[in-house]
Amino acid sequence: MSRNNSSSDIVDRIIRGPAARRIQCRQIRAGQMICGEDEEPSDALLYVRSGRLRSFVSNEGKELTLFVLVPGDCVRFNSDTLLDALRDSEIIFVPMSALREIGRTDAEFAGWAILQLDRLLDRSVQLVKDMAFCDVKQRLIRALCDVADRDGRGGDAGIVIAPSPNADDFANRIGATRQSVSTVMAELIRCGILHRFGQQSMVISDIARLRRELAPDRRTSSRSAPQAAPAWEA
Amino acid sequence: MSRNNSSSDIVDRIIRGPAARRIQCRQIRAGQMICGEDEEPSDALLYVRSGRLRSFVSNEGKELTLFVLVPGDCVRFNSDTLLDALRDSEIIFVPMSALREIGRTDAEFAGWAILQLDRLLDRSVQLVKDMAFCDVKQRLIRALCDVADRDGRGGDAGIVIAPSPNADDFANRIGATRQSVSTVMAELIRCGILHRFGQQSMVISDIARLRRELAPDRRTSSRSAPQAAPAWEA
Repeated sequence: MSRNNSSSDIVDRIIRGPAARRIQCRQIRAGQMICGEDEEPSDALLYVRSGRLRSFVSNEGKELTLFVLVPGDCVRFNSDTLLDALRDSEIIFVPMSALREIGRTDAEFAGWAILQLDRLLDRSVQLVKDMAFCDVKQRLIRALCDVADRDGRGGDAGIVIAPSPNADDFANRIGATRQSVSTVMAELIRCGILHRFGQQSMVISDIARLRRELAPDRRTSSRSAPQAAPAWEA
Repeated sequence: MSRNNSSSDIVDRIIRGPAARRIQCRQIRAGQMICGEDEEPSDALLYVRSGRLRSFVSNEGKELTLFVLVPGDCVRFNSDTLLDALRDSEIIFVPMSALREIGRTDAEFAGWAILQLDRLLDRSVQLVKDMAFCDVKQRLIRALCDVADRDGRGGDAGIVIAPSPNADDFANRIGATRQSVSTVMAELIRCGILHRFGQQSMVISDIARLRRELAPDRRTSSRSAPQAAPAWEA
């Protein structure tokens, strides 16, 4: 199943269907934040039509990125949800009550919703496993591989990521401190795996070696972040 | 919606319906383990009809309990899943392919599957938040409150839990070491919150005080482990 096409076809059909008035489409500017507790409805499946957002949780000044969302992705939106638009984005809220109602008469939509929730569940369990069993270095390497797959472009010196997340972004993403992220980054540069890091760009000079560091877990990792093809191979 | 009744009605109907041959019912003896990678089908929604099981992940000798499953609960079962029967149990495997197929013609079942996946997702995200933001003491207190709600009986000295999980069980459940669990247990005994711990039973002498320690988070905690009513209030 081609995730993006099917998803956008199904969502387009729902938006124009009889439940249209219960579904909200919204434009979000880059940098804008959305807090679940300020929103109505606060219990929804959120679909990303365009752009890029980060879903995160926060507690006493600490943040943890749950998912980076690109077009075709879904996330469960409730009063605890925090979203941060990394680019101008268009999102669609399908309230859970509407979702169940539409699912009653639209079997294709019900199947789509089951698949989306199942994918989110798989990603969440993978996150739990990473936090329980992987140290900062392993979690950071996984995050670097994900960023390379998603945003990297092939270049002479390796895979170029620009703009690149900074140490704080990576720290929030993997639930670590900025300092421990910087320490591992320095180690990867020393080993020649990472060529440069900073000034909003990054070059991964040896992605194969980076991936080998994750080898035993690569199967589950790739399942947790399904993608059509790495951007830098295109 | 009364979770247990509706779930068992729906599951009973599916077992007797036209997709019956694709659904597996299985009896598991207490102490028996099930590994997803040994099973066929390995991609299923597992429904607990009776008994009690623990779903956990494991890596290089370390374990982390994801969910303790009681009748009416579901869990996603795939090649990574490990299950441990804590009591004689009856479980039902609904392969994901059958689940999608049944959902196409049975809207009530599709709605049920959506609800089950959504509950699991909510519990998983709560687990991620606990691991990211709560220290061992907070995670252990939450686990103690859950055990008291689920298994506790009212007694003269407080809430009696017998048999009770031991320090290793709690350590696996919250992703901590046995030693740090024992340290917190000793602290709770010293404060008079826990009356006794060991010899397979435990008495929580001041559950109200234990709950107050979690007060700011109690709302999300109760959402993550929905139950009809605490057993010790019955």
